[in-house]
Amino acid sequence: MAKKEIDLAFVIQNVDLFYFSGSIQRGYLFVPSEGEAVFFVEKNYQRAVGETPLKCIQTPSLKALPNLIGEHGFHGSSVGMEFDVIPVAMFNRLKTFFKHWETVDLSREIKKIRSVKSEFEISQIKKAGRIVTQVFSEVKNHLREGVTELELDGILTSIGRALGHQGLLRMRGFNHEMMNIHVLSGTSGSVVSYSDTPLAGHGLSPAIAQGSSIRMIERDQPVVIDYGAGYNGYVTDETRTFVIGRLKGPLEKACRVSLEILEEVESFAKAGVQPLDIYERAQERARMEGLSPYFMGIDEGQVSFVGHGLGLEINEWPILGKGEKRALQSGMVFALEPKFVFPELGAVGIELDYIVRESGLERVTQFSKDVITL
Amino acid sequence: MAKKEIDLAFVIQNVDLFYFSGSIQRGYLFVPSEGEAVFFVEKNYQRAVGETPLKCIQTPSLKALPNLIGEHGFHGSSVGMEFDVIPVAMFNRLKTFFKHWETVDLSREIKKIRSVKSEFEISQIKKAGRIVTQVFSEVKNHLREGVTELELDGILTSIGRALGHQGLLRMRGFNHEMMNIHVLSGTSGSVVSYSDTPLAGHGLSPAIAQGSSIRMIERDQPVVIDYGAGYNGYVTDETRTFVIGRLKGPLEKACRVSLEILEEVESFAKAGVQPLDIYERAQERARMEGLSPYFMGIDEGQVSFVGHGLGLEINEWPILGKGEKRALQSGMVFALEPKFVFPELGAVGIELDYIVRESGLERVTQFSKDVITL
Repeated sequence: MAKKEIDLAFVIQNVDLFYFSGSIQRGYLFVPSEGEAVFFVEKNYQRAVGETPLKCIQTPSLKALPNLIGEHGFHGSSVGMEFDVIPVAMFNRLKTFFKHWETVDLSREIKKIRSVKSEFEISQIKKAGRIVTQVFSEVKNHLREGVTELELDGILTSIGRALGHQGLLRMRGFNHEMMNIHVLSGTSGSVVSYSDTPLAGHGLSPAIAQGSSIRMIERDQPVVIDYGAGYNGYVTDETRTFVIGRLKGPLEKACRVSLEILEEVESFAKAGVQPLDIYERAQERARMEGLSPYFMGIDEGQVSFVGHGLGLEINEWPILGKGEKRALQSGMVFALEPKFVFPELGAVGIELDYIVRESGLERVTQFSKDVITL
Repeated sequence: MAKKEIDLAFVIQNVDLFYFSGSIQRGYLFVPSEGEAVFFVEKNYQRAVGETPLKCIQTPSLKALPNLIGEHGFHGSSVGMEFDVIPVAMFNRLKTFFKHWETVDLSREIKKIRSVKSEFEISQIKKAGRIVTQVFSEVKNHLREGVTELELDGILTSIGRALGHQGLLRMRGFNHEMMNIHVLSGTSGSVVSYSDTPLAGHGLSPAIAQGSSIRMIERDQPVVIDYGAGYNGYVTDETRTFVIGRLKGPLEKACRVSLEILEEVESFAKAGVQPLDIYERAQERARMEGLSPYFMGIDEGQVSFVGHGLGLEINEWPILGKGEKRALQSGMVFALEPKFVFPELGAVGIELDYIVRESGLERVTQFSKDVITL
């Protein structure tokens, strides 16, 4: 904040509130560049007091804001806000309350701070990872010919929920919607959509346009399951490929190459490595195997990354792809997802989550190749 | 648009895109006050073409916007946008593209149009309602002493999903998060939170702060299940109260009063009635029964409505409460949810969805009192 000459951070998005205060109760967190942070709480005050160690002050509504700013001695000329998530209508209202302040975008600073996780945060991500490991280990008990993607989706969701899945996963930003699970079998894996992901699926209608469909699972076809668990706000995002019978031709090969890309990245990635190097080495590997046209999607659906950061949201920094300039730092957590999509055959791929350490990468979940019933 | 002197509507939120075009593929829908609407699609163009009857033009990215505006002959001085959902950062960027245009908030006009449903929309809501009816009819097969709220939540979610639940429900606006189901037993029903709802629940952590918890369901305690299904984008939102054994004292009485409020509203509400009248008559009924302090929440958690519109989102117009000025119109759809919350005992209540007709209200779901195993 000092570097950008911001005198006051004004935080209102629920995930950022949770990160900085430990509570998502409705309110406004004031963090001055010097002095004590205060959480002004609209609703529910008692619950917020029990959740955050910060000073809480009960406030009736947004209208009280101008008085709060003065009364509590917040002064300066520049206030930072989350421009990437606050809607225009709310922002226009906030500006009238901060009449003599300049408003500055704070979203990049917040994303940067949040990209490096504490050991406590990592422990929460690992707890989410345990749910993922257990749910994937259950697939063999429910994957049958003739079961629909939707039925398997429901069964696995229910197992994860009973194990303590928090119920929803968060994705930051406008129009971004996150489902806990995608079960995509056969050509469902080849269907692209609006989202910035290599696979998307049909979903049940154009209104959702992603996810599991009513397609029945068939023998010798890839079943790609992308599943994320959430624990105390922290998420994981992993993928496994299953098959009843055998994968054939390019699918079998691409599945093997996915695993080899993971192994190769594990052999060199660590703090200090450039995320773009990971993407380019994965691309190079796909190229050497003659799989470039299928790597990370096909045609219009091809994305320009091979992984992404995660934490309280599923699309955090770093991006393992084009546009990412900063080197990996110890404590970053990312999902690495080499995937291949074939027009007539479907998709295959593996996605694992990693913690960046000085010496290398640490896996978040238990993963053994034999889970994939090839 | 003509009334507000808006020359061009620029629609980008996914739900509004679906409403006006039938597709949520990433793009920008231009609707001029005179002439043909055009859907400029970034991703995925082919999918959009298959989903919308509107004219589609493929476009590489937001950067192409200034040229598109000129090239396609859109002219005027005023462009309407969805100020209630577009984030500041994106808006600032859009403004540079619409350099010589005045930007105007279009969100109220969109909400108004969307508040009255066509018969096609109503048929989709009824299909979502069938899932709700079936899921509630399954509760008796899974509700047992010692089952946790979470386990029952997972089982019912899985049943709904297999029946064709679209997977997620949408709620419009900043910081609004929607879960498909809440199972709240005993004092879980008394827990308040940040949301503008009479009940909220513990959830699994302060990071989520709503929903089912690890509490085991006990005998003679109310089990309130709030469940919404989604079909082709359209949602329902209903609640039933169950009990193993018997509800006692004020809970039994309040549950009966909830049903009586529904019956009373059914007896007079129709097109032309003021939504505030429904709220006030429900309040009056609660007062007559000595239940005012518990109606629609307790203390800070008490909300000032007894129902809300729904359609593609769960928080549409009309609001059945304070602040709503417009009379009910034929084709509106709303959830009516008389609920009572008691500090030490938990909550009870029923929520049903209704279609407003000229002659009265039509129920969306099959509902019979004997579902409640009193």
